[in-house]
Amino acid sequence: MSNHVYKSIELTGSSATGIEDAVANAIAVAAKTVRHMHWFEVTETRGHIEDGQIAHWQVTVKIGFTLEG
Amino acid sequence: MSNHVYKSIELTGSSATGIEDAVANAIAVAAKTVRHMHWFEVTETRGHIEDGQIAHWQVTVKIGFTLEG
Amino acid sequence: MSNHVYKSIELTGSSATGIEDAVANAIAVAAKTVRHMHWFEVTETRGHIEDGQIAHWQVTVKIGFTLEG
Amino acid sequence: MSNHVYKSIELTGSSATGIEDAVANAIAVAAKTVRHMHWFEVTETRGHIEDGQIAHWQVTVKIGFTLEG
Amino acid sequence: MSNHVYKSIELTGSSATGIEDAVANAIAVAAKTVRHMHWFEVTETRGHIEDGQIAHWQVTVKIGFTLEG
Amino acid sequence: MSNHVYKSIELTGSSATGIEDAVANAIAVAAKTVRHMHWFEVTETRGHIEDGQIAHWQVTVKIGFTLEG
Amino acid sequence: MSNHVYKSIELTGSSATGIEDAVANAIAVAAKTVRHMHWFEVTETRGHIEDGQIAHWQVTVKIGFTLEG
Amino acid sequence: MSNHVYKSIELTGSSATGIEDAVANAIAVAAKTVRHMHWFEVTETRGHIEDGQIAHWQVTVKIGFTLEG
Amino acid sequence: MSNHVYKSIELTGSSATGIEDAVANAIAVAAKTVRHMHWFEVTETRGHIEDGQIAHWQVTVKIGFTLEG
Amino acid sequence: MSNHVYKSIELTGSSATGIEDAVANAIAVAAKTVRHMHWFEVTETRGHIEDGQIAHWQVTVKIGFTLEG
Amino acid sequence: MSNHVYKSIELTGSSATGIEDAVANAIAVAAKTVRHMHWFEVTETRGHIEDGQIAHWQVTVKIGFTLEG
Amino acid sequence: MSNHVYKSIELTGSSATGIEDAVANAIAVAAKTVRHMHWFEVTETRGHIEDGQIAHWQVTVKIGFTLEG
Repeated sequence: MSNHVYKSIELTGSSATGIEDAVANAIAVAAKTVRHMHWFEVTETRGHIEDGQIAHWQVTVKIGFTLEG
Repeated sequence: MSNHVYKSIELTGSSATGIEDAVANAIAVAAKTVRHMHWFEVTETRGHIEDGQIAHWQVTVKIGFTLEG
Repeated sequence: MSNHVYKSIELTGSSATGIEDAVANAIAVAAKTVRHMHWFEVTETRGHIEDGQIAHWQVTVKIGFTLEG
Repeated sequence: MSNHVYKSIELTGSSATGIEDAVANAIAVAAKTVRHMHWFEVTETRGHIEDGQIAHWQVTVKIGFTLEG
Repeated sequence: MSNHVYKSIELTGSSATGIEDAVANAIAVAAKTVRHMHWFEVTETRGHIEDGQIAHWQVTVKIGFTLEG
Repeated sequence: MSNHVYKSIELTGSSATGIEDAVANAIAVAAKTVRHMHWFEVTETRGHIEDGQIAHWQVTVKIGFTLEG
Repeated sequence: MSNHVYKSIELTGSSATGIEDAVANAIAVAAKTVRHMHWFEVTETRGHIEDGQIAHWQVTVKIGFTLEG
Repeated sequence: MSNHVYKSIELTGSSATGIEDAVANAIAVAAKTVRHMHWFEVTETRGHIEDGQIAHWQVTVKIGFTLEG
Repeated sequence: MSNHVYKSIELTGSSATGIEDAVANAIAVAAKTVRHMHWFEVTETRGHIEDGQIAHWQVTVKIGFTLEG
Repeated sequence: MSNHVYKSIELTGSSATGIEDAVANAIAVAAKTVRHMHWFEVTETRGHIEDGQIAHWQVTVKIGFTLEG
Repeated sequence: MSNHVYKSIELTGSSATGIEDAVANAIAVAAKTVRHMHWFEVTETRGHIEDGQIAHWQVTVKIGFTLEG
Repeated sequence: MSNHVYKSIELTGSSATGIEDAVANAIAVAAKTVRHMHWFEVTETRGHIEDGQIAHWQVTVKIGFTLEG
């Protein structure tokens, strides 16, 4: 395992439901084009407010995946 | 849109349920006196422990709203 | 001077022109209701992109003013 | 209350469900050996990805408790 | 207690004597208009120098108080 | 809007003129290959000095764009 | 000296008097169980407010001591 | 030189030997697909422990390269 | 080039005009006594307000130059 | 794996040789009393200078291990 | 005032008494060679422990002074 | 020892070999003009890439030395 090289990208997922769902959405979109994803880290948690209520959450994650070197 | 000026305030909401509910509580109280809120950002997630269990969550958010200039 | 108490607020000004103008806009709006402003500090510089070009700058400043204690 | 001394430790709890459950797991394990816990603060939110989906969340918390001095 | 919402403001107090006195000055001025203050956190410690000696300390604190929701 | 996923990339633009122009240069190059850019954030402002004068500015921006998921 | 290994722990001391006394209280409690303490670093300075006045200071310190390896 | 635009990516290289070797591994893999790399910056140094010993180092680097604009 | 040693100093330049001019002023003063300056990095952007308007900008830069070893 | 709870401690190892050796020394001492260590992260790299030369390196690591819950 | 250029240096003063005295000691030594000092900012507060008690405080300050350009 | 005042300067050393050698080069150059150096702290680790390989490392250190007050 010690010779692998990982790349990380930064995505922001959104969801009307909450933080976990916004992260899942970001990873689901990434999974369409990126293989070998291993971990994520939440780097920012924001959201939009409409009419005095939370309209949706926007959660930014770093996602790490193995480069097929 | 480019001439608007936004102000941000910092509130801490609490909830026995979880992070999303604590943020919703903070925004609900803000909505009583602040209009034109547009976004929030979570800046701190803490909580209190009683009898070895989470008693309530305390989540701090910056909330941005348009100044009616 | 050593007995003064200062309060700081956080505003975001925007401008199609650039950073200095966005800050000036934020301070101009603040000046309508806040007196005795003394300093500002830029804490975030962002902007919006439309059609592949900068549409406007959004610059966040902390502004400090004397509380008339 | 002003003479108490608090110690903080750093634990990482995990959960397949979400952030709140991961924190609750960390505190439940701590409660087996630590008494007089009062507060926690989330310092890092990460997770593992398997087959393009979130496998489990890993949330790091600082936990503060009174030293019985 | 878990339904309270707190607001935090940022003040800078000054004092020729030292850090504790500068914080006390900031809180004393806040107490004239803000009720239900509960905690403070020191976020910056600065000062002015005149004739090669400390003229006064300037200490910035975040102060948290309950919003009467 | 709440189901969009955004990706952010980090570019450094340079300019002999100033900060705004360096950012515009970075975005102009990005626009050749990236569509649906929405925002940028300045993360670093540096520059080179030649013969005791500013030779050019180098400004790093995070640029966010919608993934066409 | 170059083969020593140090461990650091994080304590929060409190005092009605001020910062230095709060730190001294934390170290005095630590000294009951920890030997070979060498240094400390203040990482957070907070406090409680009661009736519009500072009730007590809460100062967090990292304390380093030699592990007897 | 002042009209160049640089892009930075983030990779994590690993090595059983040490930090320099882990960085070299990351750059060697990047060199297979990225041309015109100019600089790197170490942003995180971690590692895995097996049987009470360092199994391998994991070093994260930002790598900057010229966009052929 | 790999044997050079650089020193960095921190200066704050001011200008009634804007950020670029404040940096240029700082570098111009440094150029009177420092040779072989190569780069700068903006570390803080502040300013003074008089009569509700920006009176001057104060921009802090780290400046790096070769030590003639 | 998703139900494990990890604890992290902070140690500083030293070495006359270099960074990797200082980390190895810290982990070797930890291994005498801590089982199930899994990862480390370097959080600070310092050293002592004697007679104008590096006398020894002091490297601080966070070390994570499984709590046997 | 808007054409002044300031330089900042970083000193660490120590004192057996407390934080304010350590800062005053640093400034007193600086005053022997530096003129036109205007401000300071505390950037680190540490100390040494001997026999389970605070032996002395070590407080690091940035000190700003006008360059006579 | 408690009355000493320390000054810190920031240097960047470079080396084709690695991090330790780059730091040693910085300290060796400093030793030509600075006496009574006591400690260093690594604040940044960067490097240059040529032809897809590390050309040299550039490591920035703060170096502390006693002011002969």
